[in-house]
Amino acid sequence: MGSSLGLALLEELPDLDLRIWARRPGAARQAAHLLRSQGARHCLGTTSLERAVRQAEVVVFCTPVSAMPALARSLRPFLSPTAAITDVGSVKAAIVSQMEKILGSHFVGAHPMAGSERSGLEAGCATLYRNATCILTPTETTDPAALRAITTLWLRAGCSLIFSTPEDHDAAVARVSHLPHLLSSLLVAQLRQATGEHELFAGPGFRDMTRLAAGPSSMWTEILRDNRTEVLAALDEFSRQINEARTALAAPRPTALLNLLEKARQHRHSLYP
Amino acid sequence: MGSSLGLALLEELPDLDLRIWARRPGAARQAAHLLRSQGARHCLGTTSLERAVRQAEVVVFCTPVSAMPALARSLRPFLSPTAAITDVGSVKAAIVSQMEKILGSHFVGAHPMAGSERSGLEAGCATLYRNATCILTPTETTDPAALRAITTLWLRAGCSLIFSTPEDHDAAVARVSHLPHLLSSLLVAQLRQATGEHELFAGPGFRDMTRLAAGPSSMWTEILRDNRTEVLAALDEFSRQINEARTALAAPRPTALLNLLEKARQHRHSLYP
Repeated sequence: MGSSLGLALLEELPDLDLRIWARRPGAARQAAHLLRSQGARHCLGTTSLERAVRQAEVVVFCTPVSAMPALARSLRPFLSPTAAITDVGSVKAAIVSQMEKILGSHFVGAHPMAGSERSGLEAGCATLYRNATCILTPTETTDPAALRAITTLWLRAGCSLIFSTPEDHDAAVARVSHLPHLLSSLLVAQLRQATGEHELFAGPGFRDMTRLAAGPSSMWTEILRDNRTEVLAALDEFSRQINEARTALAAPRPTALLNLLEKARQHRHSLYP
Repeated sequence: MGSSLGLALLEELPDLDLRIWARRPGAARQAAHLLRSQGARHCLGTTSLERAVRQAEVVVFCTPVSAMPALARSLRPFLSPTAAITDVGSVKAAIVSQMEKILGSHFVGAHPMAGSERSGLEAGCATLYRNATCILTPTETTDPAALRAITTLWLRAGCSLIFSTPEDHDAAVARVSHLPHLLSSLLVAQLRQATGEHELFAGPGFRDMTRLAAGPSSMWTEILRDNRTEVLAALDEFSRQINEARTALAAPRPTALLNLLEKARQHRHSLYP
């Protein structure tokens, strides 16, 4: 996510002063090398938080959510008082509340809904964010100037923006992202446990439905656990849907099943005309 | 499915003598017109079963499965004794048994796993079957010459072939096609019933996971009901998977969830390296 963001911003701002922090020296060096090879004129790779954030106008957290609070506490002494700070975490309510406590009103939570099955540096791609939706979750206390700076950052990266509360964000992504991810993994798990060679019969539909299951499992374990309450609620809703479908399918007449599929078809069409 | 098959075969066999039967004169005319406009030299569109099948070497049923037996009985008197017959039905056990009773050993059940959200004549496309998997379900009584003719037909259309019993076919497609379709529709149904504007948060993953739900609802109602026993069994298996995932997600430690996602990830990778 980080290297892709750097690449996307460089396309708009070739003179951007980029600094990339990573825990491991090799990772920092490699990321800076990638960005320079793609035309970055000013790009530093470093393991020093001080060198990374001193005088920075914008700071972006591209680590797992669980690593953010400790990192925020470590870099806080070096931050410029006007720096605007954002992140790319997939879950927002808990982290926004923690980061605001540590960093104050200049933190603006963000969740760019971009990514692919691949992760890590080698997956960096300047177009990752283009046409992606990025959700910003400012709160009542967010500083207006920081919000403007972070809004500009994500627009420059190519995203379209949605504004939401951190809580609404978590309820929504549980249903449009986290639950679908889990269902995708469960479809593969079911196939894996089957006795016959069912995979020979899989067509493009199965391939699409299981694409999410190819995502990095440790990252998704963390995302799902971070948003556990909402994901469990979404799973329970889905179990009720399955029971309704079961009843509709077992009914002597096709009406209920047709109704279910047709309403879903129409709604899907209204979402993606 | 029918017009696409005609187009695919024409690319290999431009001199093919094609006859297209449809119940409505307009549909028969339009299909023949489409195929002629794409280079068919000999193409008849007709509503007469006799004209459509007389002296035909190969007959392909591209109607809903429920319409096939009556149509088979009506055209049987006009069939050449050496004609090989196949179909494109998505469910096989019941229809193969019925068609064998009506048409004898020259019927070879087929299920080309191709298609798109679109249906009908205007969706016709010469490349629909290219690289698609087609499952053939000959039985102990199938005539070897008919099997050779039908095998050649689907290979010429561009498919890779799998051979299966009709029963194994139905168990497998319930799990790799019918259940995924239902889950896709249920994901949309859940979103539709949500109170918030969750769809604003949907990214490419949700789009992929709901693509199947855009399929024609009456066709899918029929497919799911035709394969009801196996689909209900697959749904019950999936409900058990959901319960396991629920337990793993609610557990204090991440191990079980990580294990579930990682095994699925690895299996997905082995399916689509």
